[in-house]
Amino acid sequence: MTRVAILGAGPSGLAQLRAFQSAAAKGEEIPEIVCYEKQDNWGGLWNYTWRTGVDEYGEPVHCSMYRYLWSNGPKEGLEFADYTFDEHFGKDLASFPPREVLFDYIEGRVLKADVRKFIKFQTAVRHVTYNDDTGMFSVTVHDLPNDREYTEEFDNVICATGHFSTPNVPEYKGFDVFGGRVLHAHDFRDALEFKDKDILIIGTSYSAEDIGSQCWKYGCKSVTVSHRTAPMGYKWPDNWQEVPILTHMDKDTAYFKDGTSKKVDAVILCTGYVHSFPFMEESLKLRTANRLATADLYKGVFWVDNPKLSYLGMQDQWFTFNMFDAQAWYVRDVIMGKIDVPDRDARAADVVERVAREDAGEDDYYAIRYQGDYVQELIDETDYPSFDVEGANQAFFEWKKNKKKDIMAFRNLSHKSVMTGKQAPPHHTPWKDCLDDSMEDYLKA
Amino acid sequence: MTRVAILGAGPSGLAQLRAFQSAAAKGEEIPEIVCYEKQDNWGGLWNYTWRTGVDEYGEPVHCSMYRYLWSNGPKEGLEFADYTFDEHFGKDLASFPPREVLFDYIEGRVLKADVRKFIKFQTAVRHVTYNDDTGMFSVTVHDLPNDREYTEEFDNVICATGHFSTPNVPEYKGFDVFGGRVLHAHDFRDALEFKDKDILIIGTSYSAEDIGSQCWKYGCKSVTVSHRTAPMGYKWPDNWQEVPILTHMDKDTAYFKDGTSKKVDAVILCTGYVHSFPFMEESLKLRTANRLATADLYKGVFWVDNPKLSYLGMQDQWFTFNMFDAQAWYVRDVIMGKIDVPDRDARAADVVERVAREDAGEDDYYAIRYQGDYVQELIDETDYPSFDVEGANQAFFEWKKNKKKDIMAFRNLSHKSVMTGKQAPPHHTPWKDCLDDSMEDYLKA
Repeated sequence: MTRVAILGAGPSGLAQLRAFQSAAAKGEEIPEIVCYEKQDNWGGLWNYTWRTGVDEYGEPVHCSMYRYLWSNGPKEGLEFADYTFDEHFGKDLASFPPREVLFDYIEGRVLKADVRKFIKFQTAVRHVTYNDDTGMFSVTVHDLPNDREYTEEFDNVICATGHFSTPNVPEYKGFDVFGGRVLHAHDFRDALEFKDKDILIIGTSYSAEDIGSQCWKYGCKSVTVSHRTAPMGYKWPDNWQEVPILTHMDKDTAYFKDGTSKKVDAVILCTGYVHSFPFMEESLKLRTANRLATADLYKGVFWVDNPKLSYLGMQDQWFTFNMFDAQAWYVRDVIMGKIDVPDRDARAADVVERVAREDAGEDDYYAIRYQGDYVQELIDETDYPSFDVEGANQAFFEWKKNKKKDIMAFRNLSHKSVMTGKQAPPHHTPWKDCLDDSMEDYLKA
Repeated sequence: MTRVAILGAGPSGLAQLRAFQSAAAKGEEIPEIVCYEKQDNWGGLWNYTWRTGVDEYGEPVHCSMYRYLWSNGPKEGLEFADYTFDEHFGKDLASFPPREVLFDYIEGRVLKADVRKFIKFQTAVRHVTYNDDTGMFSVTVHDLPNDREYTEEFDNVICATGHFSTPNVPEYKGFDVFGGRVLHAHDFRDALEFKDKDILIIGTSYSAEDIGSQCWKYGCKSVTVSHRTAPMGYKWPDNWQEVPILTHMDKDTAYFKDGTSKKVDAVILCTGYVHSFPFMEESLKLRTANRLATADLYKGVFWVDNPKLSYLGMQDQWFTFNMFDAQAWYVRDVIMGKIDVPDRDARAADVVERVAREDAGEDDYYAIRYQGDYVQELIDETDYPSFDVEGANQAFFEWKKNKKKDIMAFRNLSHKSVMTGKQAPPHHTPWKDCLDDSMEDYLKA
């Protein structure tokens, strides 16, 4: 019997489990599946922990989430086509739920599908190799609580370990003498730590925008954001400034390229993440920038040199959960022999075409459509429930405009589900005044 | 030619390089040596970095040191017998140097020995296996800057990766809701972060004692130390209290087993480290408690099941640098065929004897002598310069008494070098008033 290893039980790995289970539920014979998960629960990034650095087993902590995190994109853009918010919560929900609510939603689908039995928790993947002679992968894993390493053989490997866990941590002159805390967004946990503090943020992408907003909301004294190329340009509150790139620091002050300086208490590096697969042998290791058209992946998922290996969710993302689904259903159908993968030349050409088409784009609107087209392309070939991808594009467009209008208020607005056609209600409290991020509070009428 | 891999270029790995080089300097033919070091410089723990969590390559940060760290034991207990403080600094030095001074001393010896050429920096060890058929080890490493993984074969492997880098991080109820920072001592960097704060420390060993003292010295508001079994019992300052074990926390308060509670701003887990060798295959992996007689190591260094593998410095430590030397010289002589290793039964019996003898001890004085005897046992069989081990024992005894007398003043006292016979001068400023930990300040007359 074909044996398939899924590495990771976050949104992508769970999508893959659900894809196989949905085929089984239709009476099809599915391969033997083993999913290895380092953490003690599923959900990947959405599985919050207070831990930072390394965990109780010395493994790098996967979680990059923080307390009080609310979705920064509308839930209408990430809804599962086979399991709507309506189905899970049985009531209308505002558009930007906090982490706990989204975790509950992700979990609801896989509880219903009863796929937990496939997962070996607290099991870290140590080494994946491919044997040309046998055509099999050897996957060496470490059962952490029992401190036991063992190796199993698989016909296929699906790597779903994510790419927002290994921080990109640049060094700036003076970090070794600055007296305050220097941390990467990956290690940020509670905005209250920075109450009444002057914080410096390096970077201009989602982490910078959201961690800065979070600290502002929970009472930091000021936010200074340093950019390399251009400011984010939103209409920030009065105690928030954007400045050029940091040149150096001393014991308590940051100095910027324009000659200005600012006394700060802490530095938060919102400098992104890197794709990191230290467990993959050289010939199987994905090396790609964080972009829409990843390097070396046919159809965005199959390893060009050996399509028995696939990588899920390795793209930069506008679409998330339902894109992982589209990929997972497609990978399932290839493994189950329902879809053919072309020869190496055609696979390589596919990547070249995707890269060129992405590079031809000029703005985020192009990028959103580009990724929407990709999702559509995949779902057209499987039995994943079709949905109005163009409607999802439109939700993203609207959301971008709302942010531009008022970055501290876009979460108060609502979007329309492309799955149910229903417009979300507004939340009971404006985001900036709502200090309680619990599910209980979010769901109350 | 025999090939030897040394894993790690900290104090133990450097001792091993120096051991081989000293034989070469005497005209002996030494094996081919490759030393793999994850960091970009040598010195192991003594190589300070501001980084915490994972480094720029996603590798767990090795450094557990913090700014303003002064040796917590007298330098007279750790002096190299073949390279004295006198030789390195050319002047008398007080007994408790800060980190930078000790780093300089460690580096001085290996610069003189010209062993840097043996080290492959920024190279992480991924996987070590032993092949019974060939009698060789395969060592797979990751050249981090070039992102290239490769494997080399070796006759012997010497693991010198330390055991104060992988934190033991227990969870207490409420850590997931407490609003302040929760960190392990491993991630502690700058006491100024805790100025004017109420800090809670969990644990009673060296990290607890020293990080608490550090925070007190740099102006934290209060120190509360929670113990599981017994308080440390030193005469602490007025704003320092020892309390029973933590039962739980809420948003801002810690609750203890005796029913008391304390509002705190941060929690520092001084809960120790674990021996962690995720790169070692199952059959080669050392699993031991932090004790004087490690499990499964003949003579405290050779892997009982396969003495071609050795582990340096894996003991709990009173003796440090010169004990690593004693081990390194011994391992060198075994590899070079000058000392024989007995059969498996005798190796296993040696471990049993050491464990029993350690277990028979009742106090720290016994433990110090026990480890002194071990050092003596090893140096008696090699050409490592003999030194007055009993004199070193006496320095440790004195030091323990000085701490008992005044925990905030023991570093103002001086000890006698067993290498040169000279009594150290007192430092120019009492430790508690000396806020500058630079080498420049320490060395000034």
